[in-house]
Amino acid sequence: MRELGIGLIGTGFMGRAHALAFNNAKAVFDLPFNLTLAALADADPQRALQCASSWGFETVHSDWQQLIDDPKVHLVAITTPNHLHYPMAMAALAAGKAVYCEKPLAVSLEQAEQMRQAAKAAGVVTRVGYNYQHNPIIHLAREMIQRGELGRIISFQGEFSEDFMADPTSPWSWRCEAAHAGGALADLGSHLLAMARYLLGDVEAVCADSQTVHNQRPASTGNPEQRTIAVDDQVHALLRFSSGARGTVSSSWLKHGRKNHLGFEISGTLGTLIFDQERLNELQVSRVGQAGFQRLLAGPDLPGYAAFSPAAGHQLGYNELKTLEVQELIMTLADQGGSGTDFEEAWEVERLAAAIRLSAREQRWVQVCGL
Amino acid sequence: MRELGIGLIGTGFMGRAHALAFNNAKAVFDLPFNLTLAALADADPQRALQCASSWGFETVHSDWQQLIDDPKVHLVAITTPNHLHYPMAMAALAAGKAVYCEKPLAVSLEQAEQMRQAAKAAGVVTRVGYNYQHNPIIHLAREMIQRGELGRIISFQGEFSEDFMADPTSPWSWRCEAAHAGGALADLGSHLLAMARYLLGDVEAVCADSQTVHNQRPASTGNPEQRTIAVDDQVHALLRFSSGARGTVSSSWLKHGRKNHLGFEISGTLGTLIFDQERLNELQVSRVGQAGFQRLLAGPDLPGYAAFSPAAGHQLGYNELKTLEVQELIMTLADQGGSGTDFEEAWEVERLAAAIRLSAREQRWVQVCGL
Amino acid sequence: MRELGIGLIGTGFMGRAHALAFNNAKAVFDLPFNLTLAALADADPQRALQCASSWGFETVHSDWQQLIDDPKVHLVAITTPNHLHYPMAMAALAAGKAVYCEKPLAVSLEQAEQMRQAAKAAGVVTRVGYNYQHNPIIHLAREMIQRGELGRIISFQGEFSEDFMADPTSPWSWRCEAAHAGGALADLGSHLLAMARYLLGDVEAVCADSQTVHNQRPASTGNPEQRTIAVDDQVHALLRFSSGARGTVSSSWLKHGRKNHLGFEISGTLGTLIFDQERLNELQVSRVGQAGFQRLLAGPDLPGYAAFSPAAGHQLGYNELKTLEVQELIMTLADQGGSGTDFEEAWEVERLAAAIRLSAREQRWVQVCGL
Amino acid sequence: MRELGIGLIGTGFMGRAHALAFNNAKAVFDLPFNLTLAALADADPQRALQCASSWGFETVHSDWQQLIDDPKVHLVAITTPNHLHYPMAMAALAAGKAVYCEKPLAVSLEQAEQMRQAAKAAGVVTRVGYNYQHNPIIHLAREMIQRGELGRIISFQGEFSEDFMADPTSPWSWRCEAAHAGGALADLGSHLLAMARYLLGDVEAVCADSQTVHNQRPASTGNPEQRTIAVDDQVHALLRFSSGARGTVSSSWLKHGRKNHLGFEISGTLGTLIFDQERLNELQVSRVGQAGFQRLLAGPDLPGYAAFSPAAGHQLGYNELKTLEVQELIMTLADQGGSGTDFEEAWEVERLAAAIRLSAREQRWVQVCGL
Repeated sequence: MRELGIGLIGTGFMGRAHALAFNNAKAVFDLPFNLTLAALADADPQRALQCASSWGFETVHSDWQQLIDDPKVHLVAITTPNHLHYPMAMAALAAGKAVYCEKPLAVSLEQAEQMRQAAKAAGVVTRVGYNYQHNPIIHLAREMIQRGELGRIISFQGEFSEDFMADPTSPWSWRCEAAHAGGALADLGSHLLAMARYLLGDVEAVCADSQTVHNQRPASTGNPEQRTIAVDDQVHALLRFSSGARGTVSSSWLKHGRKNHLGFEISGTLGTLIFDQERLNELQVSRVGQAGFQRLLAGPDLPGYAAFSPAAGHQLGYNELKTLEVQELIMTLADQGGSGTDFEEAWEVERLAAAIRLSAREQRWVQVCGL
Repeated sequence: MRELGIGLIGTGFMGRAHALAFNNAKAVFDLPFNLTLAALADADPQRALQCASSWGFETVHSDWQQLIDDPKVHLVAITTPNHLHYPMAMAALAAGKAVYCEKPLAVSLEQAEQMRQAAKAAGVVTRVGYNYQHNPIIHLAREMIQRGELGRIISFQGEFSEDFMADPTSPWSWRCEAAHAGGALADLGSHLLAMARYLLGDVEAVCADSQTVHNQRPASTGNPEQRTIAVDDQVHALLRFSSGARGTVSSSWLKHGRKNHLGFEISGTLGTLIFDQERLNELQVSRVGQAGFQRLLAGPDLPGYAAFSPAAGHQLGYNELKTLEVQELIMTLADQGGSGTDFEEAWEVERLAAAIRLSAREQRWVQVCGL
Repeated sequence: MRELGIGLIGTGFMGRAHALAFNNAKAVFDLPFNLTLAALADADPQRALQCASSWGFETVHSDWQQLIDDPKVHLVAITTPNHLHYPMAMAALAAGKAVYCEKPLAVSLEQAEQMRQAAKAAGVVTRVGYNYQHNPIIHLAREMIQRGELGRIISFQGEFSEDFMADPTSPWSWRCEAAHAGGALADLGSHLLAMARYLLGDVEAVCADSQTVHNQRPASTGNPEQRTIAVDDQVHALLRFSSGARGTVSSSWLKHGRKNHLGFEISGTLGTLIFDQERLNELQVSRVGQAGFQRLLAGPDLPGYAAFSPAAGHQLGYNELKTLEVQELIMTLADQGGSGTDFEEAWEVERLAAAIRLSAREQRWVQVCGL
Repeated sequence: MRELGIGLIGTGFMGRAHALAFNNAKAVFDLPFNLTLAALADADPQRALQCASSWGFETVHSDWQQLIDDPKVHLVAITTPNHLHYPMAMAALAAGKAVYCEKPLAVSLEQAEQMRQAAKAAGVVTRVGYNYQHNPIIHLAREMIQRGELGRIISFQGEFSEDFMADPTSPWSWRCEAAHAGGALADLGSHLLAMARYLLGDVEAVCADSQTVHNQRPASTGNPEQRTIAVDDQVHALLRFSSGARGTVSSSWLKHGRKNHLGFEISGTLGTLIFDQERLNELQVSRVGQAGFQRLLAGPDLPGYAAFSPAAGHQLGYNELKTLEVQELIMTLADQGGSGTDFEEAWEVERLAAAIRLSAREQRWVQVCGL
């Protein structure tokens, strides 16, 4: 069996999530590779060593370029701050390595465009971590749509709201800088846009409105110095899909009571679907002639679910979506199918977000394909 | 005590709803008038007599002008098809009578404008039946907003969806004609626009997208002849409120599983409110620092509720919202307060809908006050 | 058409609810009688006059016996405090009048037994106000059960909880006296027992446990004097139905957050039903092979609902259940069907409650039919 | 740092769940041991090798006694069929090893009693896998109760229902044999009893009713031969807690639509809690004076949650409850706290279940401590 050596850059929350996911994919699935956690990179060598020991990595590097160059590394996983995605992914592609990069692909559409071109030129497998798509019940939703169970899809109403910036004294962070892909649209909304595309395909045109509600925040917690904030706190947009469906998307990080509300409602000529990431194991469905919605609970009839539990109602969590993402990536690496967002598709998400930003700035409809 | 004679035009579902509401208001509230159901008009004299007997009206007229001229009638209630609102209301105003007209005010903005001017000139009390506003829990929502309990309001996301036209073989009806104020926006959406204005005030600008999904329908049930449909099946719009709040509204009569889903979510800097007309006795609230939403059940601490039940959880229904509308109208007639939508405000709702239609047609932002 | 003169005793909340229901039944249904609100009785003649005027009664009596004797009264409706049900109903039966008595039938099983015998002897129509049964969606639940859609019923788990006595400083009232049919079981639980019998039939045996949690309460609001309380604050019981189904019932008036939670869950070999009076227009259903519950919203396909609204999702309220109760009573009076709890059935409810009390006292299973 | 060698017996779903949990605990927590997956035992040596490779175990044994005797094994984890818990745990205790046994402790109260005595004599740490207790939101519920936030607890109403045996043609399995701890009470209800004890403490007396609804099932899928079934399909019981609280528990594996409905409602003099394992990241709370329930979503303010996710709403799943169980067990092994069900407590659960069975058989109240 072929070797697949994983090289992971970054040891924050998301680095650990990747480490867990690779370990668990190995334990849970019959993988078409001999998977090894080959190398871990962190600028702090002490931290790298400690995490490598806890997470099961064989070697550490304090220089990420060395990890990329390490011959035992076949897949480079990037979990560093957003502005580092570009140099690291470009270096990995230059080295001919497969790349698994956290979302967003990049901090500007220009970078994203270069990364997409480089990926195409390198001819390697790429993947961006839009993990919410790997939920078995989202796969089910997509299949229902593609099999025509909901008829012709006529509308998508989506929202991704949280409240972690709702307090105006929550301090400035990198998330407040456009140059780091900050703002509600980039940070949260991109997940929603990726989901909308995953389920309904291309978006042709958008018209958006966005707002910075709190345009000053403390430079740090309790700091009397204020920094000016220019990124969006909330955005609302109209969407026209190429399929003819219409819809709205909204994103906010100021919405009290919402914690991870990536929700959508899809209306077709034969039925309606409702989903909310805060209850990720459930899908509400109404079909022709039904007087209300039925709550479907995820169970082992859904392939990804069965890998984790033999019985419905036992609940997958956030980390299992990540494991499923990793499994699908590995299947793609083995040329055995596997779905997920590659650099081409992630660029499409970035382009759609850019169109929304342009539309909001110029207060007019914008054709997405013109960008 | 002064006499208040009610003259009701129309004996359909909505006519009966008015009759029930006047009778129940009399039984439930201490009214500042001696209320009498003075006269009922229907073109069919037999039906008029029969309904008058069941509903407690003293006289009948088969000619609505006679009802308006009847000296025992002080308030003219209009529940006829939409295109008759204009001539009847204009005649009643000309006769110096107070007018209580079902929504929509009129079938064109031009008519609405004339009615508003005529009402102003007549100096009488007018009211349009946006009954969902008279829900005690909606009053509570409005008070919470006005008292600043939710902080500065930053977004309104509203939807009014039903599924009664979802079946493409549902036949043509007057609801499919723009000239009768048909289409999802006029028929359903206007309730939502009225609600948005009731809660958040003026809307400055809109950008909308609308769609006729089924552009042919049978001329009547089972009829092979098809009629072309031009009105909207669904509409989505962005809103900019004068207060600075932003938002979206959607309306559809094709949404399977939705029966009376007049829902909204209001986000403020200190809290969030969620409401759904399908559960009209409940309000979901989240405030600063709460890890989720609290479900408030209407109870006798809300004035309108207390009139009907001494205990929470006993549920008001649709007809009681109508009774509360009537009671508020009567208080206004007695110059003792009472809220509700007068012709001026109903014209604002029509103007907002017209702006949405224009925006959808021209695919651009439209300033509402320019219309 | 025959005359049906209503004589109503009592002008409290429940008296008004009856008045509304008779008026609305007249307006909403084609009744087989010429219905008149013939007479209203209240010990306070001023109040009687005032209510009669608001509610549309033709005459008043300050002596209830006179109302019973009034030849214009054919049906005597009793809405006075519980301990007066017995003398009033017995007098009405002695006069050969039909009787519509609020729940509970009586304040002791002995009284209930006499009332049942007297009703039998008089051969008149009797009815007790278990209004929650007259919900169209409850009728649907019963039909689903009787048509076998849920298969063989194997369990009933019911609860009626509120929180209006949860505050230990809520003062003593008649509800705290067994001699006035006080206590959580008699006040709330009896509705649940009536519902269980309505849906599943006879109960063979019970085993119960009950508790007085707050055994002292202020004699009146803010009064330092304490009164000893002996009635149950909460009760839990096991039930064995004659059909073979088993189950539990619980009742409490101390349950914070519950306002009118008359809820049940019925399990059959082919499906499960869930209902909660706090959302009285909904029924949750799961059938063989479904991965979760479907929410059914009441709509005009349910006969009682269609009388009030032409569209689903418009919501019936508490008062409409009362109107439906009155309509069914009137159909029974006309010998045209109509369901509801007569004195015989109400006695069964009382006997079941008595068995629960005995079982709780003696901490053993009790056969219901032995009492 | 001390070594902690894990020896795992069993490679089924639960064996894998343990393997995942040990691996993830190592990655997620700072553990006070150098944790190694020392040995895996399965009667099939091929399967043992394959699983050991996927799951990261160092050695395999095809004889479980050898695993127990392996000096590298300090903790023996038992995930074999129920009737093997007794011999394996007794052997491990005899060898002075710590034991982590899946629920139920044993297949008879006699075995359980011996295991409890042996554990006491051995003086080692023992743990039984009642994993649902390790949910951070359940910890929160317990703390709320213990801090008195709900006042004096007066009732517990619990249910554990699924539908995996609802189909009468679901074949016989070991779950249908009392000798293998089969039946709804032992299989599902024991989780509920453990939860009730975890939250409210000792139960003094019970009165129960149980039923075998389908007393024949096919010997295997599609097999025309029928086997007689004697275990309970559903059970309902009244509970009297030593604290004075009262309640009910129900368990069924025939309830259509219920997938993992371990639910409870706890009522105290100052508030009410509602929980459902099908939405394991949520708790509904109502406190004095609130007009309804608040939905709390688990978040990083709860210690166990923070280990997995930095943000609320990201959802823990079933497998993470197992990881938390393992982490708490390891803390106990290090004498650093850690909660969980030891053999003494698991015996209490078995005794309570035995009391319920006796009560159902003899149709009378049974004192638990007499058994």
